Amino acid sequence: MSHQSINAERLLTRIRELGAIGRNDQGQLTRLAASATDKLGRDRLVAWLRAAGLEIAVDRIGNIFGVWQSQDNAGQSPLMLGSHIDTVINAGIYDGSYGVLAALEVIETLKEQGFAPVRPIVVAAFTNEEGVRYAPDMLGSLVHGGGLAVEAALATVGTDGTTLGSELACIGYAGTAEPGFLKPHAYVELHIEQGPVLEREATTIGAVENLQGISWQRVTIDGVANHAGTTPMAMRSDAGLAAARVGLFLREHIARSNAPSVATIGTMRFEPDAINVIPSRAVFTIDLRDPDEDRLRALESALSGFLDRLEQEEHVIVSVERLARFEPVSFDGAIVAAIEVSAKARGLKSRRMTSGAGHDAQMIARIAPAAMIFVPSRDGISHNPREHTDPADLVAGANVLLDVAVRLAGSP
Amino acid sequence: MSHQSINAERLLTRIRELGAIGRNDQGQLTRLAASATDKLGRDRLVAWLRAAGLEIAVDRIGNIFGVWQSQDNAGQSPLMLGSHIDTVINAGIYDGSYGVLAALEVIETLKEQGFAPVRPIVVAAFTNEEGVRYAPDMLGSLVHGGGLAVEAALATVGTDGTTLGSELACIGYAGTAEPGFLKPHAYVELHIEQGPVLEREATTIGAVENLQGISWQRVTIDGVANHAGTTPMAMRSDAGLAAARVGLFLREHIARSNAPSVATIGTMRFEPDAINVIPSRAVFTIDLRDPDEDRLRALESALSGFLDRLEQEEHVIVSVERLARFEPVSFDGAIVAAIEVSAKARGLKSRRMTSGAGHDAQMIARIAPAAMIFVPSRDGISHNPREHTDPADLVAGANVLLDVAVRLAGSP
Repeated sequence: MSHQSINAERLLTRIRELGAIGRNDQGQLTRLAASATDKLGRDRLVAWLRAAGLEIAVDRIGNIFGVWQSQDNAGQSPLMLGSHIDTVINAGIYDGSYGVLAALEVIETLKEQGFAPVRPIVVAAFTNEEGVRYAPDMLGSLVHGGGLAVEAALATVGTDGTTLGSELACIGYAGTAEPGFLKPHAYVELHIEQGPVLEREATTIGAVENLQGISWQRVTIDGVANHAGTTPMAMRSDAGLAAARVGLFLREHIARSNAPSVATIGTMRFEPDAINVIPSRAVFTIDLRDPDEDRLRALESALSGFLDRLEQEEHVIVSVERLARFEPVSFDGAIVAAIEVSAKARGLKSRRMTSGAGHDAQMIARIAPAAMIFVPSRDGISHNPREHTDPADLVAGANVLLDVAVRLAGSP
Repeated sequence: MSHQSINAERLLTRIRELGAIGRNDQGQLTRLAASATDKLGRDRLVAWLRAAGLEIAVDRIGNIFGVWQSQDNAGQSPLMLGSHIDTVINAGIYDGSYGVLAALEVIETLKEQGFAPVRPIVVAAFTNEEGVRYAPDMLGSLVHGGGLAVEAALATVGTDGTTLGSELACIGYAGTAEPGFLKPHAYVELHIEQGPVLEREATTIGAVENLQGISWQRVTIDGVANHAGTTPMAMRSDAGLAAARVGLFLREHIARSNAPSVATIGTMRFEPDAINVIPSRAVFTIDLRDPDEDRLRALESALSGFLDRLEQEEHVIVSVERLARFEPVSFDGAIVAAIEVSAKARGLKSRRMTSGAGHDAQMIARIAPAAMIFVPSRDGISHNPREHTDPADLVAGANVLLDVAVRLAGSP
């Protein structure tokens, strides 16, 4: 294990500099995938990659790769380090960008120290991870991992009616490389936690061993609209009250089961949505997550049984539409162990953990051993201008990434 | 008690004829207050009132009166019968119009039969009962009853940005009579029930003895937006789940109290309203009604106590805004008894009941003895093209109104 360290000042300056690109008149940061502001961020990243002496490759879905290879190791499958630089609307500066810029920082550090890796090391910045403009999220890494044909991905129509393919061409990032042309030996992604666990436990490093499965459903409950003043309580089919019971059932069920599952009803709409009319319809979404596939299935099944009972008890009709379903992902045990070893050697408190959010790493895990390193997020906040990680934690995470890169690229 | 009867054919034909006025290309009926279609309806009504030999008066707020008086009774305070002819959007044909046209039918029948009332009998059609275009509802009768100054009422700005005063002038119904110039001896309003009780109990006549008090509040619950995947259930401040508990509390509380109270959460809005974000805010309305003021206050108080507990238990902040508050109205016992006597004499099943909806009668009850007669609504539906009352029930209700008019105007 090497105890060399990255250049903290260079990393932190670049994070701030990239975070200044794509701000509007009110100072809000928004770099939606394949937008004009995304182009500005990409241009800056590519300039940095070039300045570090890396070879640039852009594939057909716009994923950017900065490749450090030598005549000696050019035949080997590369170690890939990366994340994404697109953002949500009114974003923070760390989500995604931190992992990409730390990957670049690790390579520059290793080059400066004369390290000669036995395999190439690649910085990757994947297209449209956030999924705000084009669905699904993690699109670039999904295509890279072979989960979606590039033609289909390029034809994706965004929330603004644009097509991803033409927008990429428009900003000059419709590359020529065939997606997946770089098959990694291993993939490591450094990211802010976007949750409260590390901060709450005063732990600097999360060794992410798996990623939750996700089940998204849209539920429509149909009752009967009626006059709020003249319809006795016992004669109602109130779609709103029936909907209210679903979220409370899920919370109680999870509490009883003592599982780490989470359930969220994030959207809700009533019809006719009038103060003096009993709701005839409630439409809402359910987000269920659990790191264990069997437990996630059991939770889906319990929900389904409850909705059946709800139809009887509330005199309503329930229909369910599946919006998305991802099985949990298990990361590579050897990489997770290397993260823990590095943290220990550097005197950093670490813990194994599950990622509750989706990340590019889950897509690359389809084709290569992969894992993630998390650092704390203040108050667990992300996708928000208040997103913040202490500089010391940012540096610590990058140093762990450095150690893991040395381990994975330093030995045959 | 007279056993003469109204002219069923004439009444039913006029209801259909007025119900054909104000339909759009799709056949939907909409006569919003002081609109061009309301003018067409008003013109037809005034033509019928004139043809029946009544004196027309229009007051400054556009209320229309058709007065039947003689030299002998012109000095007496009049018996007033009426309702309104404005409608909601995409309305049925009975709500309001039935009461106005039945009042006219009663007068024509009495004139034809040579009845000589000891006091004038007046048909009243009040402006803007529905409140769809201008708030509050029951505006014309509120002004007539002295509850709102006519200048303030005329200055009301509608949902379409128009002013009620100028729109009334525009359609030619900004009259000159001072509102309230006719102080009734008594007021009786015949109306469809707009609820399911009479139909369910196979009862033809509702003798409406009171009208529920109404409490409208808007509640805002503030929690904390957080990532749906990374925030453990126990660490959430979920505004949506807190909101869900409010409606269920109200239903359980009312069931336990065994009161006739009703509670409705008809509108609901989440922020940020995203599938994978815990709601930071839920905004919703609560409609509480009870015919007894003490019970309505107790229900408001129980709700307030629950919202206090909710703040503690759900780690949220609750704020409440009062939107409207009307105390319950008690109608005149003698008129209610007269309704029951008439129903019995005609072999019609009747019951005393409470009006859950608001009506012009509650405003006129401020200045005169008042009551209402209800007839069944099929499936309890109103404010809807499917609004329907059987012709036999429409005729039965009008005959009861006839009897009550004879009793109230026939003796000094």
